Amino acid sequence: MMPERHISADEVIARCRLLAKHTDVAGETTRLFLSPAARDVHQDLLGWMEAAGMTVRVDAAGNLRGFYAAAIEDAPRLMIASHLDTVPNAGAFDGVLGVVLGVAVIEELRGERLPFAIEVVGFSEEEGVRFGKPFLGSLALMGKLDAETLARTDRGGVSITNALRTFGLDPERLEDAQFAPETFAYLEFHIEQGPVLESVDRSLGVVDAIAGQTRLQLIFTGQANHAGTTPMRLRHDALAAAAHWIVEVEQYALCHDGLVATVGRIDASPGAVNVIAGEVTVSLDVRHARNEVRHTAVAALLSRAEFAAVSRGVRVAATKMHEQAAVPMDVELVERLLSAARFAGYPTERMTSGAGHDAMIVAELVPSVMLFLRSPGGLSHHPDEAVLPQDVEAALATAMVFIKTLRDRDDAAVG
Amino acid sequence: MMPERHISADEVIARCRLLAKHTDVAGETTRLFLSPAARDVHQDLLGWMEAAGMTVRVDAAGNLRGFYAAAIEDAPRLMIASHLDTVPNAGAFDGVLGVVLGVAVIEELRGERLPFAIEVVGFSEEEGVRFGKPFLGSLALMGKLDAETLARTDRGGVSITNALRTFGLDPERLEDAQFAPETFAYLEFHIEQGPVLESVDRSLGVVDAIAGQTRLQLIFTGQANHAGTTPMRLRHDALAAAAHWIVEVEQYALCHDGLVATVGRIDASPGAVNVIAGEVTVSLDVRHARNEVRHTAVAALLSRAEFAAVSRGVRVAATKMHEQAAVPMDVELVERLLSAARFAGYPTERMTSGAGHDAMIVAELVPSVMLFLRSPGGLSHHPDEAVLPQDVEAALATAMVFIKTLRDRDDAAVG
Repeated sequence: MMPERHISADEVIARCRLLAKHTDVAGETTRLFLSPAARDVHQDLLGWMEAAGMTVRVDAAGNLRGFYAAAIEDAPRLMIASHLDTVPNAGAFDGVLGVVLGVAVIEELRGERLPFAIEVVGFSEEEGVRFGKPFLGSLALMGKLDAETLARTDRGGVSITNALRTFGLDPERLEDAQFAPETFAYLEFHIEQGPVLESVDRSLGVVDAIAGQTRLQLIFTGQANHAGTTPMRLRHDALAAAAHWIVEVEQYALCHDGLVATVGRIDASPGAVNVIAGEVTVSLDVRHARNEVRHTAVAALLSRAEFAAVSRGVRVAATKMHEQAAVPMDVELVERLLSAARFAGYPTERMTSGAGHDAMIVAELVPSVMLFLRSPGGLSHHPDEAVLPQDVEAALATAMVFIKTLRDRDDAAVG
Repeated sequence: MMPERHISADEVIARCRLLAKHTDVAGETTRLFLSPAARDVHQDLLGWMEAAGMTVRVDAAGNLRGFYAAAIEDAPRLMIASHLDTVPNAGAFDGVLGVVLGVAVIEELRGERLPFAIEVVGFSEEEGVRFGKPFLGSLALMGKLDAETLARTDRGGVSITNALRTFGLDPERLEDAQFAPETFAYLEFHIEQGPVLESVDRSLGVVDAIAGQTRLQLIFTGQANHAGTTPMRLRHDALAAAAHWIVEVEQYALCHDGLVATVGRIDASPGAVNVIAGEVTVSLDVRHARNEVRHTAVAALLSRAEFAAVSRGVRVAATKMHEQAAVPMDVELVERLLSAARFAGYPTERMTSGAGHDAMIVAELVPSVMLFLRSPGGLSHHPDEAVLPQDVEAALATAMVFIKTLRDRDDAAVG
């Protein structure tokens, strides 16, 4: 569609780095929901959006909404979105890159009007840092910010309702944030935040599902005892039981394609060099693109925990802390994006997103797809988070082909 | 020797429980080195000792020294000793029982004078709680309280030297604490503080060695990463590596007779449910009666740590924190005590002490032996610590036979 770029990959990266300077904490990038820094980010993006021919507003949930009208009235609408908030001491690309790329797509159109409108959305909240609950921005678009959520308070005791008011928004008018019913597709660019694309030397990945997740806490209870006077065969060592099980978790996941299972937290009590551990608490995080694979894995791992414990005269109890079903992306959009990437010269494959994203929330009501960009070193949530210019170029080229195929389809449909 | 008991097992236990009331902390038994409660314990013991015909003094290191003269002048001397200090919130028998049993032995003699003197010593310090260094009482007897040790301070900044002065002792006269060169044997009664005797249904155990000990700290360094976005095969999971190794430690020790190896402390960083552990620090405590078995075990376990780490792209570094050679008890005294127990009707076997005791310090200069009494539930360092009356009876009966065989030997020698 475009023989040469209007906006370069370097410019996209420079814009992300510029936005990273808007921070709640000097010397780093920390930008929480509805902070003054969020307003500064809106201001910069509004400038670029308006220059590209968009009309811009901030909705009642603090989401930045840039609208690029179609060639016709009452046209269907494509949404391109990601989030503008960050984790504490973040990098410059998690979330922000997806919005800046959305604006770049509009600039690439150079004023060409399509048979569908495009709305570029910068979600006000995704990370869940300020109020301990993620996806507030996209939940608002889906009409799912309920009263219980709005009453949540931050560390300073400020409720979401009051934070919205302080930002100059009207929490009574949250329906104003809801997505337009004519929205037919949702596209989210995001850095991978993992090492997969780098390991296979690919610029891009098309996400076909966001993994479901189960989080458990297990407590192994044995008998604390003197490390010198208690022979091995008379022990009930809670740490040995937990360790046995941690290895089982790793080995089970290694044997099941696409499964990840992690024990990241461990606490042994009393925790002394010369005392056998009497109680050990561990976390388990299990994810897979298919719910049944995850459910089978959790059941198998619980039964292995039982074995690791019982064989040492140790008891084990498990508590489910969190569960979230897998969210498949739209089959047709996945195929279309894969074809677009191939056509643009960046052949790639489907992949599962192991992390949650706004697309997970939106996909329930709008056909959705995500395009991952390689994360150098797999690094994210860190000031050194990066993205390669050639991968930004690949994402932009793929998006333009993707939009062209949507345009041609819609032209055909209209014709 | 004695057809009926002069002092009953119940009386021994009652005395221990009485002494447990002398505490630095109301409502529990906590009695640190040179505390006012230590003086109260001395007072009670002095009464019982003098009533039994002993002359009593407190030496310059705060040890209580009761002397029961022999039938002749310049006679050899048997020492019966244990410690009078406690851990915080202790039971009534750890240490104290050994001293009370020493006094009971003298009472059982009913004034009979032997060809050797008996010195009953209540060591002022063994647990190492107040100054972070154990065995201060027995070290003083061995002439090993050096200037560096005396300069150690407690949490209040008080040095050992000043604590001795405050107790009314003269730290300039520490040679006054040294053991008499005519001491030919050392006997220490002590609760087992472990589950072995209970598991084989025995009242008593004769200690033939105090285990040597090596303590290490190992740090496994992998790569912290997102638990959702990092596939299993691209992980460098420091906790999985450490867990693999903890199981190896357990299995290795289970396969090597008399070896105990314990990982009691573990710390995983960053320690979040959804983050693969990047760094894990663990402790290792290895003990065995034979130094070469312990050295071989430590080398084997370090090499297994290397394997557990390398196979996951994790690094491991080990630091030796503490090492102490095994201390064998005197072969002749061990045999004599085993025979005495058998003769008294309490057949038993040799065992290794996995914990350190004053006998370990004394054994370097004086032929030594220990008699363990069964610990119900293996429990010690706990208010519920106990000892069974029949086991106290067994220990006293065994000691009286032991002393009789020493008397008869010395009679023969004199004859």
